Amino acid sequence: MAPHDTAPGPTETAPTRDGLWAMPPGPPHEEKHFTQNEVVRDLVIGTADGLTVPFALAAGLSGAVAANPLIVTAGLAEIAAGCVAMGLGGYLAARTQADHYAAERRREEQETHDYAERERWEVAAILHRYGVRGDALRMAVESICSDRRRWVDFMMRFELDLQEPQPDRAAKSAATIGGAYVVGGLIPLAPYMIFAETAPALAVSSALTACALLGFGWLKAAATGLPRATGAVQTLAIGGVAAVVAYIVAKAVGG
Amino acid sequence: MAPHDTAPGPTETAPTRDGLWAMPPGPPHEEKHFTQNEVVRDLVIGTADGLTVPFALAAGLSGAVAANPLIVTAGLAEIAAGCVAMGLGGYLAARTQADHYAAERRREEQETHDYAERERWEVAAILHRYGVRGDALRMAVESICSDRRRWVDFMMRFELDLQEPQPDRAAKSAATIGGAYVVGGLIPLAPYMIFAETAPALAVSSALTACALLGFGWLKAAATGLPRATGAVQTLAIGGVAAVVAYIVAKAVGG
Repeated sequence: MAPHDTAPGPTETAPTRDGLWAMPPGPPHEEKHFTQNEVVRDLVIGTADGLTVPFALAAGLSGAVAANPLIVTAGLAEIAAGCVAMGLGGYLAARTQADHYAAERRREEQETHDYAERERWEVAAILHRYGVRGDALRMAVESICSDRRRWVDFMMRFELDLQEPQPDRAAKSAATIGGAYVVGGLIPLAPYMIFAETAPALAVSSALTACALLGFGWLKAAATGLPRATGAVQTLAIGGVAAVVAYIVAKAVGG
Repeated sequence: MAPHDTAPGPTETAPTRDGLWAMPPGPPHEEKHFTQNEVVRDLVIGTADGLTVPFALAAGLSGAVAANPLIVTAGLAEIAAGCVAMGLGGYLAARTQADHYAAERRREEQETHDYAERERWEVAAILHRYGVRGDALRMAVESICSDRRRWVDFMMRFELDLQEPQPDRAAKSAATIGGAYVVGGLIPLAPYMIFAETAPALAVSSALTACALLGFGWLKAAATGLPRATGAVQTLAIGGVAAVVAYIVAKAVGG
């Protein structure tokens, strides 16, 4: 390793602590970049499918079956099935992610014992990819690998691209996805509960769901920092295409 | 910046190129860690919901409606709606991800011009978190920020945790999820097409879907390196709970 030069180098700002200098001013806005919030993502997953599938199922059945009570029964059964499948699925996915992280972390830690030189080299190879060379590379690798916890942290994050999951994530994820699916699904189904005839129920359900999809697509785009009108139209299009295809299928089979 | 010491340091292996030495031997197996394949993930998403929701819907309706043709109509309409909603949803999610990456990359690149000192500091702060200190830190930051492309690469990957999406990912994702949903959904529905009576159709559908869920859960656990029996039972449990809830709802509303 190269000898440490403790004199401050010709950097523009003076080093304060272990070579990390004071934070220079950044962009004026606090939230620099949109980082996808996990709760927003769960809400989006649940609402998107909740609005679309029950709407399309009800619309499809209205082409094949005349009676609204039957459409409501099928719709509610679908909402129940979808809510449980997506909610429990989300729960297990989050649990699996946590187990996977723990297993890979144990494995990575064991490898820093069994194949220390290889793991040191892997740290070097990652930094080398970003242009760290020569002495800087050897010194940086030395620093990172001098503490096993940091060394394993580095490998988890930068080699394996795994982030430590939050402990209560699984249950929250399940509740958010499942709840959003039920709320989303009841919107297109409500008119079939109110109207006795299929035709007005389908018309009101279509109008209601179209508004909900436009609004939801708009909000989703706003939350991800993308063009809002595009997001609104795309989300509406998914619901529309799904309903038309379900209608054609139901008409062909049962009509 | 500290002066470069070009004499090789007392590392165990000699540096070969710019300080990156030859790769030491690692674990004997080629695939060190399971890294979630995106195609596998899409197959899992489509199959899980495809097996569960149409099965639960058909089982639920069989408690409220006697006629199999109606159950088949509702089931096929659901499969069509779910396939389009999930497939198109997957397509747009992948497209959105690509747009988001491009937008954030432009923004990050602009910031290396407008707030160069702040962005240099952010590189330093990330490395500091992993134990890089003093001269090693300043030299490493110098190396990374000497090339703007690498600098932005580093920020995208390590500050924002964004990876460049594959260009044809969106269409492939849509086809995989949608296709898996149709294949998964036809398994529980097939008995209702074959049998005239609801009771034997429900029994065969339940047995068939239980086998499919167990096998699918087993394969999914194998692909993610987790306990296989646990994965099989958990997947079966989701389908079972979803079906029971759908049955109770349909029976309460329409029975």
